[in-house]
Amino acid sequence: MVEYAYFVKGGAMIPELKYDTNGLIPAIIQDVNNNEVLMMAYMNKASLEKTLEAGKTCFWSRSRQKFWIKGETSGNIQLVKEILYDCDADTLLIKVQQVGAGACHTGNRTCFYRKIEVA
Amino acid sequence: MVEYAYFVKGGAMIPELKYDTNGLIPAIIQDVNNNEVLMMAYMNKASLEKTLEAGKTCFWSRSRQKFWIKGETSGNIQLVKEILYDCDADTLLIKVQQVGAGACHTGNRTCFYRKIEVA
Repeated sequence: MVEYAYFVKGGAMIPELKYDTNGLIPAIIQDVNNNEVLMMAYMNKASLEKTLEAGKTCFWSRSRQKFWIKGETSGNIQLVKEILYDCDADTLLIKVQQVGAGACHTGNRTCFYRKIEVA
Repeated sequence: MVEYAYFVKGGAMIPELKYDTNGLIPAIIQDVNNNEVLMMAYMNKASLEKTLEAGKTCFWSRSRQKFWIKGETSGNIQLVKEILYDCDADTLLIKVQQVGAGACHTGNRTCFYRKIEVA
């Protein structure tokens, strides 16, 4: 589904974006300091608005079906520095300053800590 | 749906991964040289196997519903250098050497060339 451009509280403009049939858009989270990809999670319209208004990442948890402020429990919040979107307007790339030990619930800095061994 | 670990032609092992209800897994493509995120696209089981076997990225095009070797027409192929997967085993991060002008069909190096202005 396409959401047309509109302004949110605080004055930021959300451009025309394409959400999937569940109303979600994937957001790649990247460390603004070293460009490491930390995680990927999903936003809906409300959580993207909240991310812009609060200046920290907020997602929609598909498994728990609820709004999720990243780091609300652990303290490992992500301060939003830049938000980009792709040519198809169906994926976000958010550059953040990661607070605390890291982004992953396993204690790793990045969720991408395992490798497929290419033969 | 969960696919258990198995070996592909050439000897690489694909670990247990979670594909969505359409049999797809998102793949973030990152430039191995400067860590720039170039694009995101989707793979199914067959296109991931092909990616490992051929050493260049192959996707599943959701809009055209067909197998898609990146750069087959433009020549802007992506040579696979490293494949990582996340803590939930439902997202891939693929580091590539991008051949040619870039990853985006618009002529930009990255598909993420537009910014949401944070107020």
